[in-house]
Amino acid sequence: MTAEPLGRIHVPAMDEILGRPFQVLDNGFVRVIDYMGSDESIVQAARVSYGTGTKKARQDRTLIRYLIRHHHTTPFEMCELKLHVRVPMDCWRQWIRHRTANVNEYSTRYSIAIDAAQTTTPGGWRFQALSNRQGSSGFLEEAKGIKLSEREHEIQDLARKVYNERLDADVAREQARKDLPLCTYTEAYWKIDLSNLLHFLSLRMEEHAQLEIRLYAETIGNEIVSRWCPLAWEAFNDYRVDAVSFSKDEQALLRVLFREGPSAAVRLAESLGWLPVENGKPSQHFERSEFEQKLGKMGIALPWQTGTP
Amino acid sequence: MTAEPLGRIHVPAMDEILGRPFQVLDNGFVRVIDYMGSDESIVQAARVSYGTGTKKARQDRTLIRYLIRHHHTTPFEMCELKLHVRVPMDCWRQWIRHRTANVNEYSTRYSIAIDAAQTTTPGGWRFQALSNRQGSSGFLEEAKGIKLSEREHEIQDLARKVYNERLDADVAREQARKDLPLCTYTEAYWKIDLSNLLHFLSLRMEEHAQLEIRLYAETIGNEIVSRWCPLAWEAFNDYRVDAVSFSKDEQALLRVLFREGPSAAVRLAESLGWLPVENGKPSQHFERSEFEQKLGKMGIALPWQTGTP
Amino acid sequence: MTAEPLGRIHVPAMDEILGRPFQVLDNGFVRVIDYMGSDESIVQAARVSYGTGTKKARQDRTLIRYLIRHHHTTPFEMCELKLHVRVPMDCWRQWIRHRTANVNEYSTRYSIAIDAAQTTTPGGWRFQALSNRQGSSGFLEEAKGIKLSEREHEIQDLARKVYNERLDADVAREQARKDLPLCTYTEAYWKIDLSNLLHFLSLRMEEHAQLEIRLYAETIGNEIVSRWCPLAWEAFNDYRVDAVSFSKDEQALLRVLFREGPSAAVRLAESLGWLPVENGKPSQHFERSEFEQKLGKMGIALPWQTGTP
Amino acid sequence: MTAEPLGRIHVPAMDEILGRPFQVLDNGFVRVIDYMGSDESIVQAARVSYGTGTKKARQDRTLIRYLIRHHHTTPFEMCELKLHVRVPMDCWRQWIRHRTANVNEYSTRYSIAIDAAQTTTPGGWRFQALSNRQGSSGFLEEAKGIKLSEREHEIQDLARKVYNERLDADVAREQARKDLPLCTYTEAYWKIDLSNLLHFLSLRMEEHAQLEIRLYAETIGNEIVSRWCPLAWEAFNDYRVDAVSFSKDEQALLRVLFREGPSAAVRLAESLGWLPVENGKPSQHFERSEFEQKLGKMGIALPWQTGTP
Repeated sequence: MTAEPLGRIHVPAMDEILGRPFQVLDNGFVRVIDYMGSDESIVQAARVSYGTGTKKARQDRTLIRYLIRHHHTTPFEMCELKLHVRVPMDCWRQWIRHRTANVNEYSTRYSIAIDAAQTTTPGGWRFQALSNRQGSSGFLEEAKGIKLSEREHEIQDLARKVYNERLDADVAREQARKDLPLCTYTEAYWKIDLSNLLHFLSLRMEEHAQLEIRLYAETIGNEIVSRWCPLAWEAFNDYRVDAVSFSKDEQALLRVLFREGPSAAVRLAESLGWLPVENGKPSQHFERSEFEQKLGKMGIALPWQTGTP
Repeated sequence: MTAEPLGRIHVPAMDEILGRPFQVLDNGFVRVIDYMGSDESIVQAARVSYGTGTKKARQDRTLIRYLIRHHHTTPFEMCELKLHVRVPMDCWRQWIRHRTANVNEYSTRYSIAIDAAQTTTPGGWRFQALSNRQGSSGFLEEAKGIKLSEREHEIQDLARKVYNERLDADVAREQARKDLPLCTYTEAYWKIDLSNLLHFLSLRMEEHAQLEIRLYAETIGNEIVSRWCPLAWEAFNDYRVDAVSFSKDEQALLRVLFREGPSAAVRLAESLGWLPVENGKPSQHFERSEFEQKLGKMGIALPWQTGTP
Repeated sequence: MTAEPLGRIHVPAMDEILGRPFQVLDNGFVRVIDYMGSDESIVQAARVSYGTGTKKARQDRTLIRYLIRHHHTTPFEMCELKLHVRVPMDCWRQWIRHRTANVNEYSTRYSIAIDAAQTTTPGGWRFQALSNRQGSSGFLEEAKGIKLSEREHEIQDLARKVYNERLDADVAREQARKDLPLCTYTEAYWKIDLSNLLHFLSLRMEEHAQLEIRLYAETIGNEIVSRWCPLAWEAFNDYRVDAVSFSKDEQALLRVLFREGPSAAVRLAESLGWLPVENGKPSQHFERSEFEQKLGKMGIALPWQTGTP
Repeated sequence: MTAEPLGRIHVPAMDEILGRPFQVLDNGFVRVIDYMGSDESIVQAARVSYGTGTKKARQDRTLIRYLIRHHHTTPFEMCELKLHVRVPMDCWRQWIRHRTANVNEYSTRYSIAIDAAQTTTPGGWRFQALSNRQGSSGFLEEAKGIKLSEREHEIQDLARKVYNERLDADVAREQARKDLPLCTYTEAYWKIDLSNLLHFLSLRMEEHAQLEIRLYAETIGNEIVSRWCPLAWEAFNDYRVDAVSFSKDEQALLRVLFREGPSAAVRLAESLGWLPVENGKPSQHFERSEFEQKLGKMGIALPWQTGTP
């Protein structure tokens, strides 16, 4: 392997947005502080593994798509992104669970807490989801929302007053902050490699992720990664975000459906316990519902009656 | 290496406290759910490295002390501890920054938030530290504390009311929680290996750590690790917690002090910029203050006048 | 959450095999030293997230399958396995690339290298794969293998002689070992949580993994994990190992195939560049070949002519 | 915190050496492929924690030294370095044990193994250390070395021949490599943040590290980190590499020595078991020897007779 002189890799589309905040929520943002590498670096690292002889063997796009398709993740670790983010703390609590990142957070032990908490518009209050015990679904009517937003203002206002009273009494900042609302904004530098970033995005852009962090994830993906490593971003969407997976049982159902027809598929589903009946009526079965959605996306007619709950 | 039959390693002193909560703060706790290994496992793992021939070469205690002294950390990774903890969220925010642990936290998206927030007694309000911008030092007089505790009750009470109003209006739990106080209690299973646990303890038992997390760290160390791996715990205290380190400059000062006497040491300190003067008076110098404390602990007289700020 | 007294979780099927070596290759093994947790611990940890109220809401098996299906990996991190393994070093080089594990390896700096290198039977020499540049495929005829195995013996024999000569000359063990064959056996304690272990197995039981490490992975999976956490093992196989994933393009092809028929599917495949022609003949296209295999498994007839390379 | 426009941070001294190989051993090298950040980025990240108000409060050098002194490691994680290295595999086996790095290694499954193994000059054969069972110490006389180097040539030569015979017989590369010498060169891209790099250097530049990896570590430290982040490098040397630590017992000995004189110190050492006697003669005690070395560096006379083994 020759050791040729090198220049640093630059991505002009990234240099253009360096330091520019993309707004998220009422008072949050994401902005790029620095980056290392590009699509080209992924290819460069993959080719270390393959040795010099193969340099022209595949085109870059084909290689990147191959790597994503076959879960060869290490070349994507060769790209690194450093962001400056401003996020409500309850959203940050979810964010920080991703452990393979470097973090420097604004310290409310050292400094006075940022004077901003996430607020909700009267139309922005979400219903508890029925089907998904941990999610939300749809919005409350605005009349109810007005009252809720007033009370939100009231509690945030009192919390800040109490905080300031403590500071005025010379209470330590580390203790004074204890009753600030969970949605008080914090800031952080967050640095992560592209492989782990894509994993973060796949979990946090997903429809079951909480709306707030989903908005951050979508901003990072659509505004930043798409500019930084467009080939990796495209492949990630084609083979991860927009992919669909069939389990062993689902494949068996499809096989029977195609080879033996709908009634055989119904019989198999029954034997798998996928068509439960309660009080004489078909009842809910999560795994079957998920399968029905997948069939719908593929344009395949359901072998059993639609409209089962 | 022979592959003899094995029984599982048990530590009777741990089996006794399994599941028993040790209270921390007004409403928190730490309790052991499970553990893997013991002092014996550390030795066993270290001896894999050394091969069979040396099995009796060193006594266990000597070997464990040697490993700690020389930063051979991997054998300590062979022990694993699983705790169930109940902690205020603002304390948990510091805790979770230790990335090499496994975590399952109580979900306030899925379930209703725990109805408890950390409260402060009138005598429990701490002053902002002067010397250390991020710490606290001493307590406010109780008369002032009474008022602060009343206001704490008021804000916590309102926050819980607002939370319940939202739930009553069928707002999603993931959104309803947003204005709960930062010190609302959460619970988690937290699993970590002994090497990373000792690192956690060395940082969180330290005097600059915030009081709340320090109390948790001390409970884990003194009540749990001391029972689980007493030899490792003793060595950790002798070679880490109670050790003192001298930098290159500090060693140079000591060398000059011992060989040439106090005035030579003062001259060296001056040339290092350790004895700054402001408006004709000696002024603060953090590194010198730290050195003075170390000399004090060793019983060595200061070469310069004591009482410099 | 109540803090009831606890006993340690035991898995009788694991206690039975504790310390018992499962042979792999000619001279290697895998044996269980200790374990923490079981299927029950996965459920227990998941329910911390869900709070007390839901304890009986789902059956254990259903919950574990749900967790695997939806990539909720953290409860699986609550189980920990400690193995003692004996592995050729060139296989260990692949093994050790999995970073989220704890390791104590036999030290050939400290001790004399294990006197065993992996040997190959005359029938065990594998051909370089044609389709997959990094794999193998089929076996050389035994006549050729005899010669190769003789030469293997010769080189391993000389390497050991040279090693011993160096030791006899009092050369440091750390240097004497430098020309031992890559396939010299080493031993290690290897400790990992179940979530990361399943990830390891999914990559190393895969058909593209090298045969040697695949044999270790299969032994760990089929002999150990299947006994330790049978529900997790079953779910892992159904939703990971035996699952099949369709990319965005593949779904589009299926949709067109089902709705508009084979000729429309062929037109789409052509427009995607999946049916390249070279010198008037259909040429190789990796992604199409992978798709054809998936269709085969589902019992769906190919829309284009089979037999394309 | 304002969100000002940003340029990328450049370090001219690094740009100059980009891609340039620094030779290590007979055939190895280390060269910089890319970097993110500088001393300035460490300061920038630390100040996120401290908020805007303190921007001019401390000079950069003082702040960086404070961070290192107090083990505030996270700001150093904000700098990232990507190297291309060429290393003997037995040295790489030690290197790869540092888990918090990103790696792409040359694949000898995919490509033909690099045709180079580390060779030893007749004067380069090291003795097994007596005091340290895992180290080396001094060199064998050249007359003996000549013979050893000849045999090294012989075994390396045969190993390469056997490898080529296998390739000629169309044996899979993944299997053909199995009897190559451990010191065969490999190459890799290795990417790591500054905090973890300094930890790597502190362990691998240490006198007990094997000579080969020590040479790599010294090259990375002295040639690269010193150019990249000179302030961090200086502080790291002053507070880590050149620091000395005294355990609880060692401090007690010093305290007694200074306050009560040498005979009291001897009595304490005896009661600690530091002055063992075997067959009427003083015998070896590792911890005491280490203490004696530290006293020597500080210019403090030993309280007991020197020359004890």
